[in-house]
Amino acid sequence: MSQVAKDAWLEAVEKFPGNPSSLHRMGARADRALEDARLKLANHLGCSPLDIVWTSGATEANNMVWHHIRKNLPEDGEVWISSIEHPCCIESAKHWLGDRIQWIPTFENGVIDPSWLQTRIQKKQPHLVCVMAANNETGCIQPWEETLDFCKEHQIPYFCDAAQWVGRLPVEGLGDCDWISACAHKFGGPKGVGFLKCPSKGRFDSLLLGGAQELNRRAGTENVPGILSMVAALDAREKELSEHTIKERLGIQEKFESFLQTRIPDIRILGHHSRRLWNTTSVIMPDLDCRIRWVVKLDKLGFAVSTGSACSSGQEKTSHVLVSMDLKKSEASRVLRFSSGWDTDFDSWKELGVAMVDLIEDILLE
Amino acid sequence: MSQVAKDAWLEAVEKFPGNPSSLHRMGARADRALEDARLKLANHLGCSPLDIVWTSGATEANNMVWHHIRKNLPEDGEVWISSIEHPCCIESAKHWLGDRIQWIPTFENGVIDPSWLQTRIQKKQPHLVCVMAANNETGCIQPWEETLDFCKEHQIPYFCDAAQWVGRLPVEGLGDCDWISACAHKFGGPKGVGFLKCPSKGRFDSLLLGGAQELNRRAGTENVPGILSMVAALDAREKELSEHTIKERLGIQEKFESFLQTRIPDIRILGHHSRRLWNTTSVIMPDLDCRIRWVVKLDKLGFAVSTGSACSSGQEKTSHVLVSMDLKKSEASRVLRFSSGWDTDFDSWKELGVAMVDLIEDILLE
Repeated sequence: MSQVAKDAWLEAVEKFPGNPSSLHRMGARADRALEDARLKLANHLGCSPLDIVWTSGATEANNMVWHHIRKNLPEDGEVWISSIEHPCCIESAKHWLGDRIQWIPTFENGVIDPSWLQTRIQKKQPHLVCVMAANNETGCIQPWEETLDFCKEHQIPYFCDAAQWVGRLPVEGLGDCDWISACAHKFGGPKGVGFLKCPSKGRFDSLLLGGAQELNRRAGTENVPGILSMVAALDAREKELSEHTIKERLGIQEKFESFLQTRIPDIRILGHHSRRLWNTTSVIMPDLDCRIRWVVKLDKLGFAVSTGSACSSGQEKTSHVLVSMDLKKSEASRVLRFSSGWDTDFDSWKELGVAMVDLIEDILLE
Repeated sequence: MSQVAKDAWLEAVEKFPGNPSSLHRMGARADRALEDARLKLANHLGCSPLDIVWTSGATEANNMVWHHIRKNLPEDGEVWISSIEHPCCIESAKHWLGDRIQWIPTFENGVIDPSWLQTRIQKKQPHLVCVMAANNETGCIQPWEETLDFCKEHQIPYFCDAAQWVGRLPVEGLGDCDWISACAHKFGGPKGVGFLKCPSKGRFDSLLLGGAQELNRRAGTENVPGILSMVAALDAREKELSEHTIKERLGIQEKFESFLQTRIPDIRILGHHSRRLWNTTSVIMPDLDCRIRWVVKLDKLGFAVSTGSACSSGQEKTSHVLVSMDLKKSEASRVLRFSSGWDTDFDSWKELGVAMVDLIEDILLE
């Protein structure tokens, strides 16, 4: 969590203890602070503050979208969803839409196939198109601007889960999408807060019922300190996100990846030649050790790395993202993901690279 | 927000930055902290830690219950719900259950009628009974222990929204209820966090889908600092909640109410002779001024008081709680609610009383 986010949280706890729905001034001040934050976020995204609904995170935001879409889907309507969305998008979409979903295929390079849209539209107009801004497992940037243009041309609502994008690349332009979801802890804000940008002048069927908060779009006392902290974090991040900084960070990533490729035979970088986020590198490790042991070994050396897919109670399913990229099961089971925070410097990446090479030499010399 | 809750939040932000679902030690430490908190809360409630699911608040928790109950309701099943539940309970219950609800009536004193349960059970066995622990508008304590006994006797699951109770009266024994909901900001914890206690060994249909968190019962990255802060706040509160302190606080409330009754003719205290929470006093003001003006006038003098019911964009509906208590519309429209925090002392109550008397004298002399 960034210092600016912590400071904003603490300040909000002191200055705005009221419930924004209360009539008295303490409530009104909290409400005003919330509306200021809404306007700030809207200005970053390029949309109306009325289109923004605060949520408890991206999971809730994504669930809200599918719940609403289900309620408003014409009898023969279908929805197109990319095959590499986050599980919270896929699971809730499957729950609410079932066989109404058409899955947009993905190339081996980790990017969806835009030509599929062009072909499919000749058969049928979908009710909505859903393609994330950047993938959480590979960091591969998806053609969301192109998809947005396509959707505008055909007057189809477009939903873009931007949880991986916001705070890592400038959000300008995202506000043109009909639906946007994101969460604070991906860009230095607190856990448990996120937002949903809904269609302009959009009312929608609330998933959480029972209060008039958020113009009847999300019941529950607003998490004022969390929201103010999230917006402060984004504000600060947006200021730092110059073309120069992004280039610099992509340069670090490239050096790290070149190092791995030079020093570790048979390592493969996922989506290597695709545009990717500067903070994420996913690799297929050589077939020397199981990946859980890589995690454990690197962990002991002070590097918190991740397997590509979500784990539940020790059982690892093959990631749907890697399957979509045509990886064999044996390859998918060797994927490690390295992701950095905003403050991770070149030296840390270098140390990680050196540690990996050392570990491999240890194994080879065993 | 209490100092102990703030400290716990800050400590958690520093010590447990990881995602509890991550495999590495930073994740495992966060997971461990979460499980310690779960055990602490379970010990307070008197239930298994496996029965506790973290949520973004009581609104989400209540919505989760009704969503689950709907999915598992037998074709001819009915659910009994008290007529004075919180709007987030009533609205989501109506949404998911519609005409399957039988409303448990309320006496004029603000307490539900337990004899209704005894009569109705001779006609039909309900799928679930829902009676809150204490009412948010009047502070009236509901016969939840008696209702729990009734439900146990007839083997009916019992859902108790304890948002107003937890942190104000000891939670011991609440864990015997099948379902319990509550939220942190009612007892000095942060906004945006709450919990749901579900039936023992209970799996249930998750409302938020997309991750294996909380044993598949609530998807989304856990708000570790929020949760730890909530449990620290409750921990501290439970230690302070001796019989003596509660008596003391009830004594302050009684003095305040006697003062109002002596000095303000025609004032009426709602549920005056019922057992009530020590922190809430709701009154019908004399017919001298509209209640919004009371709120504004008292606000200017530094007292943040509330109208009895929720307001949405200036339109005030008559509160369903007051209607259930057989108040006339004209009476309900004059209700003011005073509620105190943990640190509100006798002097503050006295000052409020004096301010009200002064305001009334001003009006009478106008």
